[in-house]
Amino acid sequence: MALHIVLVEPEIPANTGNISRTCAATDTHLHLVRPLGFRTDDASLKRAGLDYWPSVKLEYHDSFAELQEKYPEGRFFYATTKATKRYHDIEFRDGDFLVFGKETKGLPPELIEANRDTCIRMPMRTEHVRSLNLSNSVAIVLYEALRQLDFPGME
Amino acid sequence: MALHIVLVEPEIPANTGNISRTCAATDTHLHLVRPLGFRTDDASLKRAGLDYWPSVKLEYHDSFAELQEKYPEGRFFYATTKATKRYHDIEFRDGDFLVFGKETKGLPPELIEANRDTCIRMPMRTEHVRSLNLSNSVAIVLYEALRQLDFPGME
Repeated sequence: MALHIVLVEPEIPANTGNISRTCAATDTHLHLVRPLGFRTDDASLKRAGLDYWPSVKLEYHDSFAELQEKYPEGRFFYATTKATKRYHDIEFRDGDFLVFGKETKGLPPELIEANRDTCIRMPMRTEHVRSLNLSNSVAIVLYEALRQLDFPGME
Repeated sequence: MALHIVLVEPEIPANTGNISRTCAATDTHLHLVRPLGFRTDDASLKRAGLDYWPSVKLEYHDSFAELQEKYPEGRFFYATTKATKRYHDIEFRDGDFLVFGKETKGLPPELIEANRDTCIRMPMRTEHVRSLNLSNSVAIVLYEALRQLDFPGME
């Protein structure tokens, strides 16, 4: 088993690159939902410095619905500043899917609306900043889930 | 009070930019120890997209020793893959300093050697990846400290 990170239509290659590095470091599966804001051919990845790409368990999906159909048993949690639940109040389980939206707009409103009970947010002060960097958000939620699971297979 | 992030000789402006955004979002003080791998004049910051810079409580220091002299009462924790203690086994307190080294080399060996008992690491699988991205490392440890403190002043 493993945890799953889902990026819905990510835009900035450096963010997806940092996330792929975190996934490789933790044996977490990475799912990218198209369209992507960057190319994933070898030359483009190399140019963006995505050196860890070959070490990541990676799947591409043409839509979020397609991903959900493939994993009907999965528990999905949706990261959004519009959630009422806080990320660390969830009891994460091995096999959970942690879903993140695009950098500029976050997750689609209809996805948030349809999944109110499993939306999660990170506490922050919003006077200065509306959200955290995407790769930082992923790292925070993923490491909280791994901490709860006592870092399976990790030293 | 607040938590403190210390970056010792950071090299890549985008990382310090992401970290400044996380600090602005959490009212965390940011300390930069020179030399820096980038310029911090307004034009350079703007070009690097560091939009959150003006919202950050920021201090520059010419050396790590200078910073420590200024905060003799501070508790300092040093993030390094060479630590034996795990970051989430620490009981963090308000006012703690979380210290991170440069992207390519981490913290200076003599700093690690002199502070063995307060070095901390993040569990990971090291077959594929030797370390996490700097801004992700900061986000993970900072949010664990904030979680333990129950996110003071944050919603």
